[in-house]
Amino acid sequence: MTIRSAVSLAALALALVSAPAAAQPGAPSQAMEKTFDSMISTADQLGWLETMSSAPNHVGAPHNKANADMELALFRQWGWDAHIERFDVLYPTPIWTTLELVTPERVTLGGQEPAIPQDPSSSRTADALPPYVAYQGDGDVTAPVVYANYGMPDDYDALEQRGISVKGKIVLARYGGGWRGLKPKLAEEHGAIGCLIYSDPADDSYAEADVYPRGGGRPEGGVQRGSVADMPTYPGDPLTPGVGATPGAKRLTRAQAVTILKIPTLPISYRDATRIISALQGPLVTGRQRGGLPMAYHWGGTDTVRVHLAVKSDWSLKPIYNVIATLRGSTRPDEWIVRGNHRDGWVFGASDPLTGQVALMSEAKALGALYRQGWQPARTIVYASWDGEEPGLLGSTEWAEAHADELKRKALIYINTDGNGRGFLGASGSHELQHFVNQAANDVLDPKTKVPTARRGRAAILAAGYADKDSVREDEFEAAKAGGDFPLSALGSGSDYTAFLQHLGIASLHLGFGGEDESNGSYHSIYDSFYHVTHFDDPGLQYGAALSKLVGRVVLRAADAPRVPARYGDFANAVSRYMADIKKLAADQREKDRTLADLRREGDFALAASPRDPIVAPRDQGITPLIDMLPLENAVDHLKRAASAADAVLSREENLPAATQARINASLARIDQLLIDPAGLPGRPWFKNLVYAPGTLTGYGAKTLPGVREAIEQRRWDDARAYVVKTAKVIEDYANRLDQAAAMGRPPA
Amino acid sequence: MTIRSAVSLAALALALVSAPAAAQPGAPSQAMEKTFDSMISTADQLGWLETMSSAPNHVGAPHNKANADMELALFRQWGWDAHIERFDVLYPTPIWTTLELVTPERVTLGGQEPAIPQDPSSSRTADALPPYVAYQGDGDVTAPVVYANYGMPDDYDALEQRGISVKGKIVLARYGGGWRGLKPKLAEEHGAIGCLIYSDPADDSYAEADVYPRGGGRPEGGVQRGSVADMPTYPGDPLTPGVGATPGAKRLTRAQAVTILKIPTLPISYRDATRIISALQGPLVTGRQRGGLPMAYHWGGTDTVRVHLAVKSDWSLKPIYNVIATLRGSTRPDEWIVRGNHRDGWVFGASDPLTGQVALMSEAKALGALYRQGWQPARTIVYASWDGEEPGLLGSTEWAEAHADELKRKALIYINTDGNGRGFLGASGSHELQHFVNQAANDVLDPKTKVPTARRGRAAILAAGYADKDSVREDEFEAAKAGGDFPLSALGSGSDYTAFLQHLGIASLHLGFGGEDESNGSYHSIYDSFYHVTHFDDPGLQYGAALSKLVGRVVLRAADAPRVPARYGDFANAVSRYMADIKKLAADQREKDRTLADLRREGDFALAASPRDPIVAPRDQGITPLIDMLPLENAVDHLKRAASAADAVLSREENLPAATQARINASLARIDQLLIDPAGLPGRPWFKNLVYAPGTLTGYGAKTLPGVREAIEQRRWDDARAYVVKTAKVIEDYANRLDQAAAMGRPPA
Repeated sequence: MTIRSAVSLAALALALVSAPAAAQPGAPSQAMEKTFDSMISTADQLGWLETMSSAPNHVGAPHNKANADMELALFRQWGWDAHIERFDVLYPTPIWTTLELVTPERVTLGGQEPAIPQDPSSSRTADALPPYVAYQGDGDVTAPVVYANYGMPDDYDALEQRGISVKGKIVLARYGGGWRGLKPKLAEEHGAIGCLIYSDPADDSYAEADVYPRGGGRPEGGVQRGSVADMPTYPGDPLTPGVGATPGAKRLTRAQAVTILKIPTLPISYRDATRIISALQGPLVTGRQRGGLPMAYHWGGTDTVRVHLAVKSDWSLKPIYNVIATLRGSTRPDEWIVRGNHRDGWVFGASDPLTGQVALMSEAKALGALYRQGWQPARTIVYASWDGEEPGLLGSTEWAEAHADELKRKALIYINTDGNGRGFLGASGSHELQHFVNQAANDVLDPKTKVPTARRGRAAILAAGYADKDSVREDEFEAAKAGGDFPLSALGSGSDYTAFLQHLGIASLHLGFGGEDESNGSYHSIYDSFYHVTHFDDPGLQYGAALSKLVGRVVLRAADAPRVPARYGDFANAVSRYMADIKKLAADQREKDRTLADLRREGDFALAASPRDPIVAPRDQGITPLIDMLPLENAVDHLKRAASAADAVLSREENLPAATQARINASLARIDQLLIDPAGLPGRPWFKNLVYAPGTLTGYGAKTLPGVREAIEQRRWDDARAYVVKTAKVIEDYANRLDQAAAMGRPPA
Repeated sequence: MTIRSAVSLAALALALVSAPAAAQPGAPSQAMEKTFDSMISTADQLGWLETMSSAPNHVGAPHNKANADMELALFRQWGWDAHIERFDVLYPTPIWTTLELVTPERVTLGGQEPAIPQDPSSSRTADALPPYVAYQGDGDVTAPVVYANYGMPDDYDALEQRGISVKGKIVLARYGGGWRGLKPKLAEEHGAIGCLIYSDPADDSYAEADVYPRGGGRPEGGVQRGSVADMPTYPGDPLTPGVGATPGAKRLTRAQAVTILKIPTLPISYRDATRIISALQGPLVTGRQRGGLPMAYHWGGTDTVRVHLAVKSDWSLKPIYNVIATLRGSTRPDEWIVRGNHRDGWVFGASDPLTGQVALMSEAKALGALYRQGWQPARTIVYASWDGEEPGLLGSTEWAEAHADELKRKALIYINTDGNGRGFLGASGSHELQHFVNQAANDVLDPKTKVPTARRGRAAILAAGYADKDSVREDEFEAAKAGGDFPLSALGSGSDYTAFLQHLGIASLHLGFGGEDESNGSYHSIYDSFYHVTHFDDPGLQYGAALSKLVGRVVLRAADAPRVPARYGDFANAVSRYMADIKKLAADQREKDRTLADLRREGDFALAASPRDPIVAPRDQGITPLIDMLPLENAVDHLKRAASAADAVLSREENLPAATQARINASLARIDQLLIDPAGLPGRPWFKNLVYAPGTLTGYGAKTLPGVREAIEQRRWDDARAYVVKTAKVIEDYANRLDQAAAMGRPPA
């Protein structure tokens, strides 16, 4: 903690003189954090939220730019060095969309979602975009419809087993089961000429909440917008992979951009989907493949249901505006603590992203006040209000790409939030930061129960595990029962940490609260409004304030501590668990392959097929071979030993000479970048982190040790063997770095 | 096989002279069985089915008596010694039923199900009973409604955790999750003053089939009738437990009959349930506790929804008519093979029970023809067409009670069927008969795939296990993969084997086909019709014919073999598995108790409770103690050894002197009666079998080793300890009997 000038504010003075004995030297005192807390105002957050969500704020919307300008002015007013950084990105917006049922009868479908009287903003849609998905392929098609459940690979297996092809047809897939963008992508790969994605009530409406406005559940006319760019290949501007979309950047043509899909695709409501599904014929959909509409579902694919689908977009470049604000570090100005949240929404964006954005603004206001009162962080703090996250993580990705070299030199940690709900702590990220996050979460009280948010998070794990043993990992249940740390989840994608963690290898965190809000029902629709948030998601923004206090602590402590506190044993344990998961995955898959071969040979599938659902045997895909994983197992074993040694040294680091401490800290500050392989993952070189990645077939969901795991899942045996070695190498590098740091802290033997 | 007179029919002659060398001496030859098969006619079955289901045939309906008279005449015509045996039982029929929504608006609900034009019998309901449940308690109540999901114990736990009492209210429970009769019983025990049971579409309508008449799924106006007598306490006439309801029998008063419920109860359609559920308030119902109606469910219990429910019944005694037919045995007339299926339905009863009844009739016609052509069984064959099964297993129970002494002396096996569907073999029963059933099922081809029905049954296990490992027991999956026997399930209750197996200890089987029919959707409604069966359940009655061939073989082989073929190792394995299940049950329950205590102490449930669903901690029920199960484990160990020794002797029995064989066979013929404890199970002395019973809280579903298992589940520790000893004793007795039989077959050591 560094004093920039002498200011006499009672609370701050207290903060500066009364650091308790147990605090880490240089870390912010409890009193200072209390002062910080006292400046977090839910009234501020409510005011900003109401203003910023009062008009459509998608990329290019005037109100989005106005919000950026307002934030810029506020940051400056609060004492930050702030500017707007613009990129010009390919961002298609629909000129028109057409959807009509042609057979069995002509009915116009689609169009804007209907206003709901109780929700004032829902009638202010004149400037809103219609329901659409960004980066679909324009087109005009009329074809029969095939229901494809979630539109994921196993659903295509189910269709194939029933002899139903989507070739030349329009796929109707429901939201859920995997990321949105995979649905039209897989449909396209299977030969479909169009795709519709609808919100089934089993997933985000009456099956889990009262329907809006009685509750927050999705109403029958609600539609989920979103991006369908192929982000598991690379996020950001489709025309500038790997580099910032600056004026002089070399751009691909639209045709060269592989992340843009080729078939027209629209999202629709369950009111519209009902018109289609109720007319479908073909085999019955049974079990978990049907949704929650009050009718039998059929797979369709016959001429009895035909739909006309057409989309025409404006494919011009559009400007996006990131607001970037810094508080310069006093003693370590070239060590950056970066914290961001996006600002753009799909329509009004009240919950997604503005609940998180106003929490960020609260932190910035409080940090600015501390700064103006004399405090200066040891490290530089960078706050970012990202634009264009919704269509493809555009703002954060272009910024991270444009500043890649500087970030790799300077950024120690990236801390992300996004739309925030209420309820239980959710925390994901680089596992060596797990204990650091828990220390902060132990010091922030849950607004409802007044216990530490980490404690309430553990209670949620325990109550869920008691109700259903299989819903919680046994090790996490036992840890929660023993009062251990609340576990971090692995990061995949779906928000702005992606470029930092997975392209650059910067240790990252993603924090928020959820589980008790009903924002699923308004997600990416016109009903994601101030009314919805304040009635069903975080009334009074109590959890918005809690988020500010939590993230503020993480930022303050990371900025002022001698080093960003890390416990490498937590990372080693996580990697070890992932290794074990993969071994089990391979063994289970091999066993299932063997069973399949046996059952195919004996004709069991044909014998078991029902006249109600006549299916053929699953495809023969061969037997998963035994893959030599020893290099990886040895590396993980080394990692565990090295982490244990390093943690031991770090636990007594304050006894070492200052110069030794500095050397150790410098050697570990950017250790996560060792997880990067410059060649990246198979088929997607932009993703370079060999421990954390979004799945190619999950989209958002994480795949850990992804080079090996996905190769086994997708039966690419040569890749599996190659990535055992590559992954082992980055883990060995990481372990060696830990060994070196530990050696620095030990007297010669 | 015994010849009664010399008749020259080519096929029969072939049968009589060409028994293959491998056949068991005295067992029917393959050729004779082929002759039997050739006389099974689907045209016969279709004709009988159409006639017998052409008018309502519930207890007391003229058409039910006409069907009995027709069967009597046919049996006699086919050469059987047949008669009708009448009992007079308490059988309430509604004089009137009233159901209306009172608040929030007055709407008349209930009444007869609507006709469906395509189904001709659905409009012939003038003589049908209205939707009702037998043995509910008459009454006239108006009260708020509480939704109770399936109305099972864990649902009351869920209500309690939400602070909702059903006291003085009407419980609305959906069908499923446990036997119908438990719903009003538990409601009554929790203080409810009325109960409604409805068919939720998640369970038997559009979630699993197209809705009638497009498919077989339950239409919105369909209602499931049924019995709600407390049959887990005792089945049969409520006034004559343990004795036949003959003219001179001592009868309880209605007030003394504990199996009659006390609160008015009606079954309703999901059309009516929608009116109620859509108005309910109170906490939201989430997860698997909600059904499949297109709305959010609430637990209710507030004054915003009030229902008026009234039932008035005619409680007079009614006659029931069993048709009993015998073919007298030649050499062992006092050894009986008993085979039955009920004849009464709830309305037209086409699927339930007549698909099974016409299969029985086919067998009887064919057996009669063989008999008239000169064959006579070694043992006496008794065929029974039971009346009054639907209201409470009345016909079979009264007959079994009336003839208990004779049956214990003479009946070697009871073979039951009930409504039959199509698809896969279903076989339950006394496990020493598992291999015997498989031998028969291996000789009967599946009508669709033309492979043995046992083979197709195994394929179903394998395909299900491949799709979802947890859906099949691992040992059964492995056995099916290795081509082992199709496994028998344990018998609980729900059909006419109950008195034979569980009251008298007679080895029993229950056979049928299913899994591909849609009879769930018509079950106990006016749509259980000839039209429904021939369109959606067993078109052409191909599986009716297969059932006749299967059961006919079981009957023929049991009647003519030197002994009813048994393999005691299968029984020992089953009991051993049940023992292991119970040990795991106790251990899991103890662990869960410990977790509950820990979580209650630390307040985790309160911390995890959501504002959307504020619940309190589950009740503290103490810790499941360690119970000494060694006596039972030793008995099971003895059983395994004894079974192994006995099977070894039996496998070479034909080499023994005839007199030795006869002694061995006599000692084993009624061995299952050793599983009977005269004092019966705790609180329900009528149920005397200590290996097989229906659960007190499942109703139909089996509980094996029930004295121990249910005592642990229901936390009656003294009973658990007592029934370890009692159960060990009956198993030791059984094992000792096996030891004695084995000793008879061995030369002195």
